[in-house]
Amino acid sequence: MAKRVAVVLAGCGVFDGSEIHEASAVLVHLSRGGASVNIFAPNTDQMHVVDHLKGEPSQENRNVLVESARLARGEIQDLSKLNVKEHDAVIFPGGFGAAKNLCTWAVQGKDCSVNDEVKATLQAFHSEGKPIGLCCISPVLAAKVFPGCEVTVGVENDNKYPDTSDTAAAINQLGCKHVSKGVSESHVDEKNKLVTTCAFMCKAPMHEIFDGIGTMVKDVLKRA
Amino acid sequence: MAKRVAVVLAGCGVFDGSEIHEASAVLVHLSRGGASVNIFAPNTDQMHVVDHLKGEPSQENRNVLVESARLARGEIQDLSKLNVKEHDAVIFPGGFGAAKNLCTWAVQGKDCSVNDEVKATLQAFHSEGKPIGLCCISPVLAAKVFPGCEVTVGVENDNKYPDTSDTAAAINQLGCKHVSKGVSESHVDEKNKLVTTCAFMCKAPMHEIFDGIGTMVKDVLKRA
Repeated sequence: MAKRVAVVLAGCGVFDGSEIHEASAVLVHLSRGGASVNIFAPNTDQMHVVDHLKGEPSQENRNVLVESARLARGEIQDLSKLNVKEHDAVIFPGGFGAAKNLCTWAVQGKDCSVNDEVKATLQAFHSEGKPIGLCCISPVLAAKVFPGCEVTVGVENDNKYPDTSDTAAAINQLGCKHVSKGVSESHVDEKNKLVTTCAFMCKAPMHEIFDGIGTMVKDVLKRA
Repeated sequence: MAKRVAVVLAGCGVFDGSEIHEASAVLVHLSRGGASVNIFAPNTDQMHVVDHLKGEPSQENRNVLVESARLARGEIQDLSKLNVKEHDAVIFPGGFGAAKNLCTWAVQGKDCSVNDEVKATLQAFHSEGKPIGLCCISPVLAAKVFPGCEVTVGVENDNKYPDTSDTAAAINQLGCKHVSKGVSESHVDEKNKLVTTCAFMCKAPMHEIFDGIGTMVKDVLKRA
């Protein structure tokens, strides 16, 4: 039977939403793996809207669920409707939206708060022993919700991973363990069934990021 | 030397912009093929903005270049700056944006007009004998600009391709030749160096669409 996987989005665009190519890669690899997919996002305002041409915040307001619907081609549900019993795994793509709209990491770092529905979703899959996949900056959600867990956000002290060392330090300060892994690899915390990969935390060609996400998705499906 | 490929976007989201997964697939396959990529979009208002959750137009205004920048992670230029001499090929992903923002096909069908910069871009690559890749609904741009050309938008009279037959009929009425091709295939008009594939014109699993776009990209790079 097809594995039923929930994908949780955070908007549409790297600087204020889900990283588009990560989300698309997750969906392509889930499709190839034969999974049936339901897509969700919280029905809440984005922290802000970034003009991706200028790289600056604009004065607009946009809704996370409405913008995530662009990535989902309209086939999306309010995260409050996600029923863990109907799914075998959950995956969170990255992008600043994960750190701005799903939690406040972008502003408060390790002292962030996590959106209630996101936290409940993570805890529900975790307590059922169902795998959770995260990429790019999304692993900080797991670090915040599951003290003591292991995640990767790339390779520490390596120019190809410019933001990894600071993020890893914050993850370690939360009492978790950061594990350095390259863009093609995922790290599996078997105890917590967390599967993480760094994706665009690495300055790599697009197809290497695509393939690394494929590794994460495979490791999730294997455990679902 | 790396093939230099221009990718022309039309916004960000299937119903009013570039189809996100098609654009992402184009970029992944170009990356794997070792191409160097520059991304462009016209600096113009979108025909309209569609709320992708409701599937209905909203009252907002958005700019094609600004929204396309989401797909380009900020690395994008005004289409008016595209210099054909600096590129070996050009690719147009699909989505309604191609038929709403790059031409008026969505409203006027075969009697549509094509955005001046888009038309000039197509004519410039064509007259230099450089390949042009198009997918989904974008092949209508070629059908409108290059009378007598051959393109595919899927398989006619097949339930898996619900909009192909009507679009193919309009293409034929323009004096062009529609060639039925499945989602995994591309059609090459060698005379005009046009490479087309149907992508989301087919109701297929995401990875099949991804792979079909890969076929198109390979056929473009081979001729670049």
